[in-house]
Amino acid sequence: MINKDNLTQHISAQFNAELEEVRSHLLAMGGLVEKQVNDAVTSLIEADSGLAQQVREIDQQINQMESSIDEECVRILARRQPAASDLRLIISISKSVIDIERIGDEATKIAKRAIQLCEEGEAPKGYVEVRHIGDQVRKMVREALDAFARFDADLALSVAQYDKQIDREYKSALRELVTYMMEDPRSISRVLSVIWALRSLERIGDHARNIAELVIYLVRGTDVRHSGLARRGSDAAE
Amino acid sequence: MINKDNLTQHISAQFNAELEEVRSHLLAMGGLVEKQVNDAVTSLIEADSGLAQQVREIDQQINQMESSIDEECVRILARRQPAASDLRLIISISKSVIDIERIGDEATKIAKRAIQLCEEGEAPKGYVEVRHIGDQVRKMVREALDAFARFDADLALSVAQYDKQIDREYKSALRELVTYMMEDPRSISRVLSVIWALRSLERIGDHARNIAELVIYLVRGTDVRHSGLARRGSDAAE
Repeated sequence: MINKDNLTQHISAQFNAELEEVRSHLLAMGGLVEKQVNDAVTSLIEADSGLAQQVREIDQQINQMESSIDEECVRILARRQPAASDLRLIISISKSVIDIERIGDEATKIAKRAIQLCEEGEAPKGYVEVRHIGDQVRKMVREALDAFARFDADLALSVAQYDKQIDREYKSALRELVTYMMEDPRSISRVLSVIWALRSLERIGDHARNIAELVIYLVRGTDVRHSGLARRGSDAAE
Repeated sequence: MINKDNLTQHISAQFNAELEEVRSHLLAMGGLVEKQVNDAVTSLIEADSGLAQQVREIDQQINQMESSIDEECVRILARRQPAASDLRLIISISKSVIDIERIGDEATKIAKRAIQLCEEGEAPKGYVEVRHIGDQVRKMVREALDAFARFDADLALSVAQYDKQIDREYKSALRELVTYMMEDPRSISRVLSVIWALRSLERIGDHARNIAELVIYLVRGTDVRHSGLARRGSDAAE
């Protein structure tokens, strides 16, 4: 078991500062992505195409953040040759950044759906589910990032396990929307837009779980990804 | 620019052997995943639930391969402290393995759809599209892995660019299937199964592109992921 104190004991204060810096860049990127998820869901529910457009534009900023964090990680690996928990920190950062970037991609997809619904007209159903699952998924993202910030494996574990709940609610919403489409075929295209948005939310939950699993690996040094503990639920859902 | 000869010149023959080994493990995992994609598509088209079940079972093997390749990469980073092109090789492997594993996840999802269609009865439409896009996506996966095996950045670039073609065909198939569902609402559930399978194929294309972009990074040392060159199309499709 390591904790924050162990993680920050280094011979070189400069190395220490570099590690702190890349970690804070990751958390800043995470915060921005969390806001993107929030804004994307709001833009869909409130039919706010301006906000949706903004989400799409900010995505490029997130892509740049990913590249620059990646470069920082490579630089630290090459120059500092970290070992043990430092190495795990760098590995966790360089993997988390992939999931954070993909959460951003999914937020962008939701924003695209919002724009589409502004053009086609409101869907007759599904907004309650988008808001409800959206709230839960955002909480997962925030807690996964908090767990990273505080090296809190317990919180990370609860995030990873919560993903099953999202998968269940997603499936149930999907069943209801499919039934609705059968009853009102004219709504198919609009209801499908809502379904795609829900699916993006479900995937955001998967990515939050991936980040949480990396926190567990970082803190405990064990890889729980394919264990029963926090079972990868991506193939369970839909 | 580096080539295979540069990549394999090391002071330590043992280090050399370790790098070769982890790379060959990655390619073996890739080969298995490519077969999974093939089998999943076949199981759906031929309504072969036995084959679909087999795909689902083999997925666990792929998860184990991912964990073990991950461990190899961490061990090499910790003990060999690679620099320059060796470091890029390890980074590329440890990132590609994520995409290869997720291709495996998507193949499993297609297999689940195949089982569902065996139970619900054949969908009235979409099989031609599944076969066609399936063939192209499989080719992308194979060529991305070949590019990795041969450090071939040109092949990798053509794979990355080909993803746009998949996105276009996916969108067009989707439009057609949505129209069909409106005309025959009783088929909605079954046609949706086909749509989910197509979507998985489209995502497999995205992952193949990610792998190809990592090959370009590995060989040329430049990160093309968010450049216009091989633009991340994940948010373009659907």
